[in-house]
Amino acid sequence: MFGLMQDRPLLIQQLIEHAAQYHGDTEIVSRRVEGDIHRYTYRDARVRAKKVAEALVSLGIKTGDRIGTLAWNGYRHFELYFGISGIGAVCHTINPRLFPEQIVYIVNHAEDQLLFVDINLLPAVEKLLPEFKTVKHVVAMCDRAHLPKDLKIPNLLVYEELIADKPGTYEWPEFDERTASSLCYTSGTTGNPKGVLYSHRSTMLHAYGSALPDTLGLSARSVVLPVVPMFHVNAWGLPYSGPMVGAKLVFPGPHLDGKSVYELFETEKVTFTAGVPTVWLALLNHMQANKLKLSTLKYAVIGGSAAPPAMITTFAKEYGVEVLHAWGMSEMSPLGTVNHPKEKHLSLPEDELLALRLKQGRPPFGVDMKIVDDAGKALPHDGKAFGDLLVRGPWITRGYFKGEGGDPLKDGGWFPTGDVATIDPDGYMQITDRSKDVIKSGGEWISSIDLENAAMAHPAVAEAAVIGVAHPKWDERPLLIIHRKPGAEVTKDELVKFLSDKVAKWWLPDDVQFVDAIPHTATGKILKTRLREDFKNYKLPTA
Amino acid sequence: MFGLMQDRPLLIQQLIEHAAQYHGDTEIVSRRVEGDIHRYTYRDARVRAKKVAEALVSLGIKTGDRIGTLAWNGYRHFELYFGISGIGAVCHTINPRLFPEQIVYIVNHAEDQLLFVDINLLPAVEKLLPEFKTVKHVVAMCDRAHLPKDLKIPNLLVYEELIADKPGTYEWPEFDERTASSLCYTSGTTGNPKGVLYSHRSTMLHAYGSALPDTLGLSARSVVLPVVPMFHVNAWGLPYSGPMVGAKLVFPGPHLDGKSVYELFETEKVTFTAGVPTVWLALLNHMQANKLKLSTLKYAVIGGSAAPPAMITTFAKEYGVEVLHAWGMSEMSPLGTVNHPKEKHLSLPEDELLALRLKQGRPPFGVDMKIVDDAGKALPHDGKAFGDLLVRGPWITRGYFKGEGGDPLKDGGWFPTGDVATIDPDGYMQITDRSKDVIKSGGEWISSIDLENAAMAHPAVAEAAVIGVAHPKWDERPLLIIHRKPGAEVTKDELVKFLSDKVAKWWLPDDVQFVDAIPHTATGKILKTRLREDFKNYKLPTA
Repeated sequence: MFGLMQDRPLLIQQLIEHAAQYHGDTEIVSRRVEGDIHRYTYRDARVRAKKVAEALVSLGIKTGDRIGTLAWNGYRHFELYFGISGIGAVCHTINPRLFPEQIVYIVNHAEDQLLFVDINLLPAVEKLLPEFKTVKHVVAMCDRAHLPKDLKIPNLLVYEELIADKPGTYEWPEFDERTASSLCYTSGTTGNPKGVLYSHRSTMLHAYGSALPDTLGLSARSVVLPVVPMFHVNAWGLPYSGPMVGAKLVFPGPHLDGKSVYELFETEKVTFTAGVPTVWLALLNHMQANKLKLSTLKYAVIGGSAAPPAMITTFAKEYGVEVLHAWGMSEMSPLGTVNHPKEKHLSLPEDELLALRLKQGRPPFGVDMKIVDDAGKALPHDGKAFGDLLVRGPWITRGYFKGEGGDPLKDGGWFPTGDVATIDPDGYMQITDRSKDVIKSGGEWISSIDLENAAMAHPAVAEAAVIGVAHPKWDERPLLIIHRKPGAEVTKDELVKFLSDKVAKWWLPDDVQFVDAIPHTATGKILKTRLREDFKNYKLPTA
Repeated sequence: MFGLMQDRPLLIQQLIEHAAQYHGDTEIVSRRVEGDIHRYTYRDARVRAKKVAEALVSLGIKTGDRIGTLAWNGYRHFELYFGISGIGAVCHTINPRLFPEQIVYIVNHAEDQLLFVDINLLPAVEKLLPEFKTVKHVVAMCDRAHLPKDLKIPNLLVYEELIADKPGTYEWPEFDERTASSLCYTSGTTGNPKGVLYSHRSTMLHAYGSALPDTLGLSARSVVLPVVPMFHVNAWGLPYSGPMVGAKLVFPGPHLDGKSVYELFETEKVTFTAGVPTVWLALLNHMQANKLKLSTLKYAVIGGSAAPPAMITTFAKEYGVEVLHAWGMSEMSPLGTVNHPKEKHLSLPEDELLALRLKQGRPPFGVDMKIVDDAGKALPHDGKAFGDLLVRGPWITRGYFKGEGGDPLKDGGWFPTGDVATIDPDGYMQITDRSKDVIKSGGEWISSIDLENAAMAHPAVAEAAVIGVAHPKWDERPLLIIHRKPGAEVTKDELVKFLSDKVAKWWLPDDVQFVDAIPHTATGKILKTRLREDFKNYKLPTA
């Protein structure tokens, strides 16, 4: 027997309607690629989103069509989020920082019909255009006056001209909430990028879950500046959760240096921001160098990689900002966990509270997690046992666009995150390694990251990396790879001794190798695939 | 094209799983009907909810079956919420304060298979039992030691015995999220009570929407005491939103007097509570008489009827408690609006901020509202125009159980609330009247409530009521009915003069009648149907 409640689908276009109706004069402020500051309201944004929808329909775009965007955080990109998804098409955000061949692969794989491009990205698109197989029009996100000269882009359209004569009275259609709404490719370290295809339902449930007090805690009193780009998992959903609660939005455009971000925080009275650690490092450096303070910022979400402890304490003690450590991935829309201490934690000694804050946090309702061993057996949530982290929930992917990579789910519906983690009795998850980097020694697991962190504490070490190397008896044993600080000296024995009171005895590396540099990914992570390649023919002295 | 996200239904049983897993040691504290305080954790509650599920299955209960409860707010009632809905059956909460014949009607109409009854309500059930047509067992919500003696209830079962030997390892089934989960009858002033049949989906979306910062703002740091009964629209959803966020729950049992409630607030460090104005009046009286203060309470939700201005200011100024004025109805799960001022309102002069707080508030995303005139035309959201308030959304009813009352929806899917309201440009709704009480004079509407409030301000008036009376020229004109304070004197002319600078001239009542008492409903509202009956043969002097 079914309940007798209204069968109303959850649709993204309802968000902009809600915001315009109940928060009509709330502002959306953008630092434009054109250089100036643009400000308007949710009421204005609704009209222009409807004009975008009308323009798309007039260009023959149909439900299910993919529309690419190559754009920074700004109001036109925001309008596209609603205009594209609102007609039932798919908003495909593309990371302009990818290698050109990746962009070509992604646009062709997605079969994008149109590409909306910010003006400073048009020259790059011009070069790639001959390789795009399905793109009918490039749309320059500007007015005629700001269009770069001498572009050779056939069928180029200009955003402001495209929507200028449209009535802006579009009636959003209603359709199944499982309809695809947006597409974001993840670039793994191996293979081609794979597309995560979000639905209206998953996006809306994620918006509800992420606005909750213990997740991002967003309200009509929030002033939200997403530093995280709108091409990076939809700016962690903030362009959806913001209008859901009627928050003021501040879009920073292409300039994410400390000075630019700081200025917007202060002039727009920003209370909430979100981004990766690198951005916050730049901001802290800028503020420290210029002896600046933050007058309104209350919360900074740090995600993408782990928040360094010093960053958490500096934000709290010197700037009065609470860092919300968060974790997620493109396949999770992206929010998986956010770290809000519980009431009982607030009275902990400072170092214990910091240790808690360094964990990745607890999941909001909607994300379910478990950790499993090699055999898939669930491990206890005791904060000690670590295993492969599996997740499930209505905003977690069940497969990639066009079936790339096959069925990723395990154990009847669990998505393997590729992370190794602990979960403590209070539900706080902590990443201890990547699944492919953990060292499996005699049936037990050794965390490469824990070993690296321990080695990094040695004063002579500039950077440390740990990889597993084949061992006849133990399957794998850890090899510690060290890049010394300029002029610093340290021996293998000194390092092993240094580690001996920091990790279990059987975790101690079987050898230490010294290198001139440790390779990194484009986002600054240690490139362990390269290290494993470099040490392919290396043999452990214990082997 | 559909998105590629996991097709996981939203089910109520997931809430207790989430709470047990991520908030396992968070407490649920109950003042029992037995008289003592009971405390356990979400982890304990999960096991016992599973035992309830196992017991129901062993009694032959199947998906869709209705299971009645006649119980106060307590942990066993909480277990029933999850045990019953979690197997796909329907948790039918019954208001024990209804007239016996209404209870009989409701139990028979719902075709309840079992009745779970708190021990102090068993004698009443014993009397009605012969009239119940479908009830196979009454289950006394206690252990054998607390079972009242000399009850003559055939097939009586005892809750603790029923679940004692069950394993508590039940695997919750997964089913369609539109499955009916709970049932609550509304008792209008006319006709038989009608059943609102909630679904898992509507309940879960309501839980998300109601936990948002601008709705009830619930988190793992909240300690929630629902004074509003669990038989009254599921205690405004708090037994669902609480576990969703891992809040500590405090159930007050049958005693809702000022002293009992105050004691629990203090001993359990309650931060959040919700109830109707009468309860808060009793609490304020108790605290004032005993010179008590509140040490932890931050938010008090007032709903059910409008919050009196003095209550809002007293809570804020003398007790440091922010009153959240809320509005809803059974047909809305029940939350429609909550009044959280926006940032710009916080700097308003005190009287203007109070005026704002007296409005019923803004809707969370998920509730859409419009006001319409007699012809169904939408009226502007200018804070002045008032019209019939229509609502729609995924947690709003589309019809009553067994089709009673036909299709209530208007205009392609809007539910008529029966209220007349304004909506201001910031989205704040204010009830100005009931649709059936508004006076339609010459095509324009006069708010009976506004007139009553204006008349109530006269020092000689104990209570004022306004009804519309037939008029040959204007269709209807207002009649003011006055119950004077003991010994006070006031004439018709004095009252009309008193009103003349308070309302528009054409709103002034055509006559004033004095009565010895004004009739009320069981919940303390003016019984206008009775007044209209009393003045059936009355003719206006202007007619």
